Amino acid sequence: MPAEIIDGKKISTELRSDITKEISQIRSTHPHFNPKLVIIQIGDRPDSSTYVKMKLKSSEEVGIDGSLLKFDADIKQDDLLAKIDALNKDDSVHGILVQLPLPKHLDEELITNSVKQSKDIDGFSELNLAAIFKKNAVTKFIPCTPKGIMYLLNHEKVQITGKNVVVCGRSDIVGGPLAKLLEKEGGTVTVLHSKSTPEQVKLFCSHADILVSAVGKANFITKDLLKPGVVVIDVGTNFVPDATRKSGRRMCGDVDFQGCSEVASKITPVPGGVGPMTVGMVLHNLLESAKKANGLL
Amino acid sequence: MPAEIIDGKKISTELRSDITKEISQIRSTHPHFNPKLVIIQIGDRPDSSTYVKMKLKSSEEVGIDGSLLKFDADIKQDDLLAKIDALNKDDSVHGILVQLPLPKHLDEELITNSVKQSKDIDGFSELNLAAIFKKNAVTKFIPCTPKGIMYLLNHEKVQITGKNVVVCGRSDIVGGPLAKLLEKEGGTVTVLHSKSTPEQVKLFCSHADILVSAVGKANFITKDLLKPGVVVIDVGTNFVPDATRKSGRRMCGDVDFQGCSEVASKITPVPGGVGPMTVGMVLHNLLESAKKANGLL
Repeated sequence: MPAEIIDGKKISTELRSDITKEISQIRSTHPHFNPKLVIIQIGDRPDSSTYVKMKLKSSEEVGIDGSLLKFDADIKQDDLLAKIDALNKDDSVHGILVQLPLPKHLDEELITNSVKQSKDIDGFSELNLAAIFKKNAVTKFIPCTPKGIMYLLNHEKVQITGKNVVVCGRSDIVGGPLAKLLEKEGGTVTVLHSKSTPEQVKLFCSHADILVSAVGKANFITKDLLKPGVVVIDVGTNFVPDATRKSGRRMCGDVDFQGCSEVASKITPVPGGVGPMTVGMVLHNLLESAKKANGLL
Repeated sequence: MPAEIIDGKKISTELRSDITKEISQIRSTHPHFNPKLVIIQIGDRPDSSTYVKMKLKSSEEVGIDGSLLKFDADIKQDDLLAKIDALNKDDSVHGILVQLPLPKHLDEELITNSVKQSKDIDGFSELNLAAIFKKNAVTKFIPCTPKGIMYLLNHEKVQITGKNVVVCGRSDIVGGPLAKLLEKEGGTVTVLHSKSTPEQVKLFCSHADILVSAVGKANFITKDLLKPGVVVIDVGTNFVPDATRKSGRRMCGDVDFQGCSEVASKITPVPGGVGPMTVGMVLHNLLESAKKANGLL
């Protein structure tokens, strides 16, 4: 029996519809409720512009007041920090997103940490990350991709407690926090990374009940690695040549979707799996922040 | 061939002797160099008093100026925070240890986080923990038990990159940070915890090249679980009945030392393994802090 496809696009659409409803419901009793997001973009990277546009469009659709603050690529660090500080102090703003990556003269860690914790809806600041890694700390904002994956697993009623979980990749915004979130849900988690040997990848994947790949390599996960019935979550965004497409290339994940679908019980496609959830979680975090600021949470 | 015993007592004694030498060497050129530690103890728990005495005695031995600030168990939280704030601002103080656990009316997380990061030689504050969990962040102070274990493994020239590492236990001060430190050194790490099933414990232990147990259960790790040649690090401190002792009990770790010694390549005993390293690392962190404050690092 081929795997059930986890339809991130559909689940994200439902989530956005819930957010839209909730905002309009709150407004019916709190007419001044105005969830507000500010995105900061430095320079003109086309990929950044695409992401920013997508976030603004999605915000508008659900009734979030999104705006873009764009600065030249050569902005001085102190000027940027002063701008963020002003937004931190502006009570009408509920979320501040600094679009990464930043030009090289800017200290990404310093700038990410300068966003006030209660407005850091990306969840990238040290304090938000620390809350994920501490055992009993109350988590504030969880980075959107790991949060989206946890949402998908919960939506699909995938049991995590007592299961063997493998997370491939250990980045600060995906693999690292995700591994900890899955552990907190009771999973026994192994993290595979660039220093893991092919033998280790084989060994741990062969026992995985839940397998998440976030390494950025097409065909990193193939059918032969999998335990039958595994749940496969594909976080990769890669491009491979494809002569049948106008662009000459095709987007794919880390997972050989077709082969793995024959063995897995559930699997996310790329595109249309984890990707749509990430933007959904930006909106979800922003709404949460606005509710908190208005004493509604 | 029985396992080589990792003699934490001896390694810690050597480390302390190095610290003593370094302090007297620095003093020969910087006569006012005075590494200073302040320990805060709230109330009169006998176990806390024992630990505090041990830390003060070890400090004195190496030439660290250690002092104890003792407060009644009913101290008001604001008074304690004001005291910590004063120590944070006192340039002559290089390290502040708040002896845990605290009486229940005090917010342990708030108080732990109130110690300035540059004086938090326990490494328990959120900012110090976050630096461990972030991929490329510069770590400041590493909690003393994980730091001591990494020191032992390095001292024993145990290769970590490419190895299967199992950490049993996921506390904020041992298992959690240790798993991340071992991962950063290239290990492929699986964390076992209270929600892991006996089958999972068996499976992952049977593949472990390095096995660390920090769960607090006598005989949790037995010979039959181990892969021949494994390096075993025992962080447990447990007491079992022993009629041959005056006290009627005997201290032991999580590991069945005798049985596991027949299979492991290296193993730490309890007592005399990880324990002595922890206090050694308090001194090491304090000296580091004093050197930084004096522009010597």
